[in-house]
Amino acid sequence: MQRPYRVGILGATGAVGQKFVEILEGHPWFEITVLAASERSAGKPYRTAANWIGTTPIPKALADREVVLGAPGVGCDFVFSGLSSSVAGEIERTFAEAGYPVISNARNYRMEDDVPLLIPEVNPDHAALIDRQQWPGGGFIVTNPNCSTVGLVCALKPLVDAFGVEQVQVTTLQALSGAGYPGVASLDALGNVVPYIGGEEEKMVAEPRKLLGTLRDGRVDPATLTVSAQCNRVPVLDGHMLCVSVKLAARATPDAVRVAFEGYQSPIADLNLPSAPDALVQVFDEPHFPQPRRHAEQGQGMKVSIGRIRPCEVLDTKFVALVHNTVRGAAGGAVLNAELLVERGYLAHRAVKTSTASA
Amino acid sequence: MQRPYRVGILGATGAVGQKFVEILEGHPWFEITVLAASERSAGKPYRTAANWIGTTPIPKALADREVVLGAPGVGCDFVFSGLSSSVAGEIERTFAEAGYPVISNARNYRMEDDVPLLIPEVNPDHAALIDRQQWPGGGFIVTNPNCSTVGLVCALKPLVDAFGVEQVQVTTLQALSGAGYPGVASLDALGNVVPYIGGEEEKMVAEPRKLLGTLRDGRVDPATLTVSAQCNRVPVLDGHMLCVSVKLAARATPDAVRVAFEGYQSPIADLNLPSAPDALVQVFDEPHFPQPRRHAEQGQGMKVSIGRIRPCEVLDTKFVALVHNTVRGAAGGAVLNAELLVERGYLAHRAVKTSTASA
Amino acid sequence: MQRPYRVGILGATGAVGQKFVEILEGHPWFEITVLAASERSAGKPYRTAANWIGTTPIPKALADREVVLGAPGVGCDFVFSGLSSSVAGEIERTFAEAGYPVISNARNYRMEDDVPLLIPEVNPDHAALIDRQQWPGGGFIVTNPNCSTVGLVCALKPLVDAFGVEQVQVTTLQALSGAGYPGVASLDALGNVVPYIGGEEEKMVAEPRKLLGTLRDGRVDPATLTVSAQCNRVPVLDGHMLCVSVKLAARATPDAVRVAFEGYQSPIADLNLPSAPDALVQVFDEPHFPQPRRHAEQGQGMKVSIGRIRPCEVLDTKFVALVHNTVRGAAGGAVLNAELLVERGYLAHRAVKTSTASA
Amino acid sequence: MQRPYRVGILGATGAVGQKFVEILEGHPWFEITVLAASERSAGKPYRTAANWIGTTPIPKALADREVVLGAPGVGCDFVFSGLSSSVAGEIERTFAEAGYPVISNARNYRMEDDVPLLIPEVNPDHAALIDRQQWPGGGFIVTNPNCSTVGLVCALKPLVDAFGVEQVQVTTLQALSGAGYPGVASLDALGNVVPYIGGEEEKMVAEPRKLLGTLRDGRVDPATLTVSAQCNRVPVLDGHMLCVSVKLAARATPDAVRVAFEGYQSPIADLNLPSAPDALVQVFDEPHFPQPRRHAEQGQGMKVSIGRIRPCEVLDTKFVALVHNTVRGAAGGAVLNAELLVERGYLAHRAVKTSTASA
Repeated sequence: MQRPYRVGILGATGAVGQKFVEILEGHPWFEITVLAASERSAGKPYRTAANWIGTTPIPKALADREVVLGAPGVGCDFVFSGLSSSVAGEIERTFAEAGYPVISNARNYRMEDDVPLLIPEVNPDHAALIDRQQWPGGGFIVTNPNCSTVGLVCALKPLVDAFGVEQVQVTTLQALSGAGYPGVASLDALGNVVPYIGGEEEKMVAEPRKLLGTLRDGRVDPATLTVSAQCNRVPVLDGHMLCVSVKLAARATPDAVRVAFEGYQSPIADLNLPSAPDALVQVFDEPHFPQPRRHAEQGQGMKVSIGRIRPCEVLDTKFVALVHNTVRGAAGGAVLNAELLVERGYLAHRAVKTSTASA
Repeated sequence: MQRPYRVGILGATGAVGQKFVEILEGHPWFEITVLAASERSAGKPYRTAANWIGTTPIPKALADREVVLGAPGVGCDFVFSGLSSSVAGEIERTFAEAGYPVISNARNYRMEDDVPLLIPEVNPDHAALIDRQQWPGGGFIVTNPNCSTVGLVCALKPLVDAFGVEQVQVTTLQALSGAGYPGVASLDALGNVVPYIGGEEEKMVAEPRKLLGTLRDGRVDPATLTVSAQCNRVPVLDGHMLCVSVKLAARATPDAVRVAFEGYQSPIADLNLPSAPDALVQVFDEPHFPQPRRHAEQGQGMKVSIGRIRPCEVLDTKFVALVHNTVRGAAGGAVLNAELLVERGYLAHRAVKTSTASA
Repeated sequence: MQRPYRVGILGATGAVGQKFVEILEGHPWFEITVLAASERSAGKPYRTAANWIGTTPIPKALADREVVLGAPGVGCDFVFSGLSSSVAGEIERTFAEAGYPVISNARNYRMEDDVPLLIPEVNPDHAALIDRQQWPGGGFIVTNPNCSTVGLVCALKPLVDAFGVEQVQVTTLQALSGAGYPGVASLDALGNVVPYIGGEEEKMVAEPRKLLGTLRDGRVDPATLTVSAQCNRVPVLDGHMLCVSVKLAARATPDAVRVAFEGYQSPIADLNLPSAPDALVQVFDEPHFPQPRRHAEQGQGMKVSIGRIRPCEVLDTKFVALVHNTVRGAAGGAVLNAELLVERGYLAHRAVKTSTASA
Repeated sequence: MQRPYRVGILGATGAVGQKFVEILEGHPWFEITVLAASERSAGKPYRTAANWIGTTPIPKALADREVVLGAPGVGCDFVFSGLSSSVAGEIERTFAEAGYPVISNARNYRMEDDVPLLIPEVNPDHAALIDRQQWPGGGFIVTNPNCSTVGLVCALKPLVDAFGVEQVQVTTLQALSGAGYPGVASLDALGNVVPYIGGEEEKMVAEPRKLLGTLRDGRVDPATLTVSAQCNRVPVLDGHMLCVSVKLAARATPDAVRVAFEGYQSPIADLNLPSAPDALVQVFDEPHFPQPRRHAEQGQGMKVSIGRIRPCEVLDTKFVALVHNTVRGAAGGAVLNAELLVERGYLAHRAVKTSTASA
């Protein structure tokens, strides 16, 4: 690679935007050149505009960078979008229309027929949906799944490949950071459980079908598995826990399930993408593991932790899965998507045009 | 009633024992005359022996009462047992052999054929199993279920009656107080989830079958429903949340399920027992309710709160249920059991004998 | 008393307003007839307008009451103000000008020369400042102190009387509910300390001087004591802890300090006001008490708990004090103020005028 | 340096011992060769003996290492002691008598006349006390301060040098990890403050005098400053917050205090010790910083964070300080002490003897 890609962050001052900034510090391929946000923040130094919530210091090189208004014309090869869904629809479209590749974490375009909903270790071939997008100027949109969905699908994929999965019951215990900042009020969160997260269960029902679907003739045939989800907010900072029970197409012992998890071969293993963990899932044998506070950061937050594999009295097998919701489930997942697209030539090709367009 | 029953508390210094003391303060029928514990505590004033963990002050009348060794001979009509299972087996047997009725919260005898596992609003007729117990001296043992099981079964019973229940998937989010004191270390609990509670899932599989079973010829025919449970510890003080999904024998809309919950007629409603709530279950319509911190105390902790009734994509119906684990799920449930036994004549009859035996 | 006073709650949908509603349920003298809030809430039933955050159910009699716009003309004898300081200044003035007595929890008028800053057990005579207020129509404003200040001053008053207090160092550990709702974001609160609460330290410096000042010729001569405060937010729901160190005018042993606390005679003890606790302060001898979660509710939240009385190496004596910030420190303190004013004839007299005015 | 020092960890399975293991992974000078613990753990693989509580995985190289009984004869050049004070006195003595340098985190020998109580950036010359120790075989004992004291003294030292410090009032808000594992029960910790930590206040009074004392003729003349401490446990995982107020010998503005903090020159800066942070203290200007959850890890947990410098109404200046209690306040501080001793020749010299002795 000759030079790093110049990247812009849309929604740079928000919680997801900050995570992009944190994760991209020192990235070998990507260099942030644009921090974009709304009018309220534009013109201010990033340090002032962002109420930095991270536990690592705000990167020195960006602390005093001026935040710009999130609109086409900014100087970068592509953009990551950490926008909230209330504005992502329009802004992302505007960027795509202006010829920018948009690697988005927002939900707005996830279920569009020609927009890849992508987990590189699960369905990298779905990137080909980009070819069907018809934005003027060569822009496109690629999305990563909902933060709980990605944990579920990473856990299901090895079982789908090994045995087939027909039905899934999942109850989530989701971290506070999933609601952004300020997000959940402390008076609601402390010592409490909120058994409802708006729109979450619907996403967990719909997105896995697309993610686990089959690309045929440039389209995704959705998988036929049925998912039922119950989503809860718990007083945890980072890391969504999922209690999963599955009905498999072929019978399998817990040992066989364990072997399937541990033996899963990532289809992108040979690419050695910078953000890809050495394995998609890690199995714990200690009965009280994994735990969000102790294990969410496994594999720099990109690995899904599995534990308590055992038979289910109602379906076939049950287990718990843990995913870092703001890394694998948001900014980290989007960065990995961008890395895949570099390797597949989508960013190399379009980046030049974008660069010209914004000149 | 001529005079209050004199009651003893076995394990009076522990977390469950303390809850018995708290709940029985001012009880119209029962008066604590004996605070029993192990040799370590015997001889000390209760105030000193118990590291009082409650948020209400230690009852004045008992604060300076001398703790006695938990062994037959103590002066009371019957005993409540808040003993841990490691010692409950032997001590409860000793008391029963000495002619004391034992109203126990421990798990040791719950699944014995001739021991009632009792929730008064669910299976009051199971009290008749007492008649089969053959302890010398007229003693007997009655038990209440595991703290999570009682929440589940109170929620299932209206559905069993209205539609029949064949399969149950339940994921629990259980409070810290369920582990006793000192119980869970704060370094394990704070901002974390522990996806394992030893023995809990097994109890939730086994106990509902007995509780929902049918008494025939002095025996309980277990119910045939299948339960699969996943149990988690969450950083909540009191109140176990259950995410439940059920397969019903007869199809039912969420509205019909709601009607079944709200219309449930407690078989003991006419007894007006002092600790019985005005309704066994309460249905919330707000999507983010019930919550443990806000609603565990409904009905003085004796009511089970239900929310989010909706269709399940895999089974038939799903909903959440909340139970106060140390009240309905432990001490309060045992006290209600004792109240039922008074009305059914089991304590009146035996109390005299016990009283004589211990003289 | 012939009939209950009809009271209005300004800011009824906010956190303090909800606490007024909760505390006044079943009050022997006061009956809520008006729930007032901003235009956003006016016209809605209280159940809908207020996002009820309490752990006791919303009072049945008020749940469907229509919220009205907070402006003079509403039918009540006086108003409690739970308004935020951003709007309290103007709205309270408007009510006072219209002849309503305003019993306010807001900070806006606390330090005005002719406005009583009142803790009935500490400075009941300061109520006489009302006589200097010159609102047209006979209205007046009475205030209660900041939630941390009230805990500090209740703890200092016995020492002021017994020994004199010259200097005070206080560090607070303040509960989340002090910031209202939604207040502190859970991502800031969970497992964290925020060492700053805007404006709080200034109030703790200024208000005690007025509260402990002497009424002379219709004016308050401020007390001369010096206070230095450091205020922190901690992840506690209710109950502000204060670590206090004092320099006394007369030397005193910890035992003498203890005697001063326990022997304090409230100047309003003979009035038997409904919300007055049986003692202003309660001393704990256990070294690890008081604790906010266990003891904030002492005396229905109206008692200040004291512990760990011991010598200070720098000043003279140090101790901890705990106050329930939303009861004694807000709504409960205001209600007690109103009870005092009833006994002193301030409300009886003006209530009739107000009632007429609003007809 | 030719080869890494071989080090043993006493109390390797405990919370402090685990932190030594975590911190020493990849250390350029020190290699753990011995994991020592009590009889209960001896003979087991470390993975099994230690209930690993860290958030980073247990180091691969040590996971299966056999734990040995903590007694002289083990093969290492010196030992770090993470022993609890109940056993540290005897075991550390035994090791010193057997010729081992003991770098201890325990409190037992801290106040002995000839034992250095050491913070390398504060009083490195105190290491010379080692020369006065008379253990047979050339062993010695060096200690680091109490976890709260070290934060206080690192914050005071720049002020002592610049202005002189006469009096100190400090209130602590201490993290749960300071109590070890299992330590504080979650039912005591969650949503609560415990205003008492046994022995802590006494240490904060005594230790600063020795740490800030002057070495004269091989003895430490204690500093004359007076400290008053109030210590609280708060529901925070790592990071002790200190609210400090000081009386200075020379008047100083907050700005001058800030300059003193920022300009502090560590006396060991030129040594470039591996664990020494680039600056001892870091000053924050944001009023709500530092916060334990966000800033405890500054400088890999070795830097003390300072904030809110402002005048004190009672003494002269007040500010907050934050120290990572298990890194700078325990294992990390001890490792830095060992690094200093390497540079000063104490370990090089004695290590050889020890090595021979243990052969």
